[in-house]
Amino acid sequence: MSSQESKAQTVKDFMEVFPDLVEEFLREVRTRNFPEEAVQWIKKSFDHNIQGGKMNRGLSVVDTLKILQNDQLTAEELFKSRVLGWCIEWLQAFFLVADDIMDASITRRGNPCWYKMEGVGMIAINDSFILESAIYFFLKKYFRQDSYYVDLVELFHEITLETELGQLLDLTTAPEDHVDLSKFSIEKHRFIVLYKTAFYSFYLPVALAMHMAGIKNEKAFKAAKDILLPLGEYFQIQDDYLDCYGDPEVIGKIGTDIEDNKCSWLINQALAKVSPEQRKLLDENYGRKNPKNVAVVKQIYKDLEIEKLYKEYEEQSYSRLNDLILQLDDSLIKRQVFYTFMDRIYKRTK
Amino acid sequence: MSSQESKAQTVKDFMEVFPDLVEEFLREVRTRNFPEEAVQWIKKSFDHNIQGGKMNRGLSVVDTLKILQNDQLTAEELFKSRVLGWCIEWLQAFFLVADDIMDASITRRGNPCWYKMEGVGMIAINDSFILESAIYFFLKKYFRQDSYYVDLVELFHEITLETELGQLLDLTTAPEDHVDLSKFSIEKHRFIVLYKTAFYSFYLPVALAMHMAGIKNEKAFKAAKDILLPLGEYFQIQDDYLDCYGDPEVIGKIGTDIEDNKCSWLINQALAKVSPEQRKLLDENYGRKNPKNVAVVKQIYKDLEIEKLYKEYEEQSYSRLNDLILQLDDSLIKRQVFYTFMDRIYKRTK
Repeated sequence: MSSQESKAQTVKDFMEVFPDLVEEFLREVRTRNFPEEAVQWIKKSFDHNIQGGKMNRGLSVVDTLKILQNDQLTAEELFKSRVLGWCIEWLQAFFLVADDIMDASITRRGNPCWYKMEGVGMIAINDSFILESAIYFFLKKYFRQDSYYVDLVELFHEITLETELGQLLDLTTAPEDHVDLSKFSIEKHRFIVLYKTAFYSFYLPVALAMHMAGIKNEKAFKAAKDILLPLGEYFQIQDDYLDCYGDPEVIGKIGTDIEDNKCSWLINQALAKVSPEQRKLLDENYGRKNPKNVAVVKQIYKDLEIEKLYKEYEEQSYSRLNDLILQLDDSLIKRQVFYTFMDRIYKRTK
Repeated sequence: MSSQESKAQTVKDFMEVFPDLVEEFLREVRTRNFPEEAVQWIKKSFDHNIQGGKMNRGLSVVDTLKILQNDQLTAEELFKSRVLGWCIEWLQAFFLVADDIMDASITRRGNPCWYKMEGVGMIAINDSFILESAIYFFLKKYFRQDSYYVDLVELFHEITLETELGQLLDLTTAPEDHVDLSKFSIEKHRFIVLYKTAFYSFYLPVALAMHMAGIKNEKAFKAAKDILLPLGEYFQIQDDYLDCYGDPEVIGKIGTDIEDNKCSWLINQALAKVSPEQRKLLDENYGRKNPKNVAVVKQIYKDLEIEKLYKEYEEQSYSRLNDLILQLDDSLIKRQVFYTFMDRIYKRTK
């Protein structure tokens, strides 16, 4: 099989687990004799909110475990790594359903946000809770007998908290309805990115696979974190870039970071370079819903050559991350784990 | 000490643990070098959302453990039972912050709802997540070394899911914006009450104390559940009654079950007794915000003598619960645990 066929097969195998997990959870709810209408509501929420993403986080668990175990996985190990992968996808759905309400977003993955669906509205908050609860149901069901069960549960708790803290910092630094660019800084942007994205998107999948592979050395987890968090930072900066310069058809959403007063990498770079006149224009136009305001901000980005700055950052970041991986003590955890991540995200367009 | 002094002392001792737990959590956040502004936000959310309640759920853990261990508790056991009690108060705050948004409520415990506070709004959703995460931080910090640590974590997961399922059923049976009384039934009301309230308010505190007391027999947990769930049902029906007939000054909120199209015990009893004309009036007036509509519904309750029906239900329920407790196998779990609950809630006014 070519690498591309193999990749497609990995995705297909991963996706085939999803309906079984959903069914497993619905069966659990049905044991309570719950009205079928409520059961179907959960199914609709799961189908709408968990599917349609790139599944990079979930697939990373499987890919990482394969690397850690030299492609020697039993059918059961393969299955269980997929379950853990889906647990991350469930976790992400939990966050995104709520984020979309908090950000007043309209679309997600090319569809209306869940809370925007007919008859859903604020019930979506409780649906996000159920998405989170499903994670611990799956962990208990498939890992209760394993020596690392408590490690998995605690890891999900820990990463969930980190992500919530990142979201808090994001929301209080850049409230949707009150623009104050003096609250922004490149340092604060780094914090937000690290906590809100890097932990759950980059460290979590690798750490889960490491637990499955029987790695116990705390130093190995620390080494993984030291590479994966900067990698996650780079990924989120790409995301900030794509929100403004990506193709909505390709990324599956219409970027609204400027309208939403987001503490994005772009605005922080702009703030560090502006003239007093440009700063005044940013103060007056950032975080406003009107397309005219957005156009003013985008023009300043253009005048300040922020896109070029991003390209330079991308090159530098790539070489710095490669250095970090080269310096890694390979006896703690295999270098290949990190190269695979690099290949997946470098110069992505979606 | 008189029983009343002793009760006041128990409450005082319980409350003294709260600021220490808050500080413990904030210290954890500060280790990340998070901006102090974000740390203070969490403190404000914890103070606003966890305090000011009756703390019956939290206190029940301490009271139950005292009964189970014949008042022989070490200082450490006392402290740890208080921590578990506060974990329930944190869990409740997690639910209530979100419930208030979903129900579009205005006040809670005599104060504005958290999401109604200046500058909070939808950020309250993420704050509710952080309230939940704190539970697992406390469990890990204080119980990680105990043989029953995993039992505690799994119990919180399980009860959280039950409560979310109850909330889902409530929200989909009685959406705030679409009145359809044909969706209501006494049976559905029972389901909602059981899942949304009884598990976390009645079974959870006792089960936590049982784990601390070293009880392992599954039959004991089952026996406790078989009494505590009906007891919780009775409690919630009281709540439904007080929402309409309680004194807002005493219960600390203005009841809006009729306005909010709630699947309350009262409306379900009324629906079972109405004439076709009264039914038509209920269809036209239930679930509307206008005080005139509410008055029509209340008049029908009066005509149908729903308040008298409640008083009869209360008497019957009291005697049925006493029978259940009498029939209990006392060798599994002490009868006194349940009498204490009965004393606390029977004929309460708040």
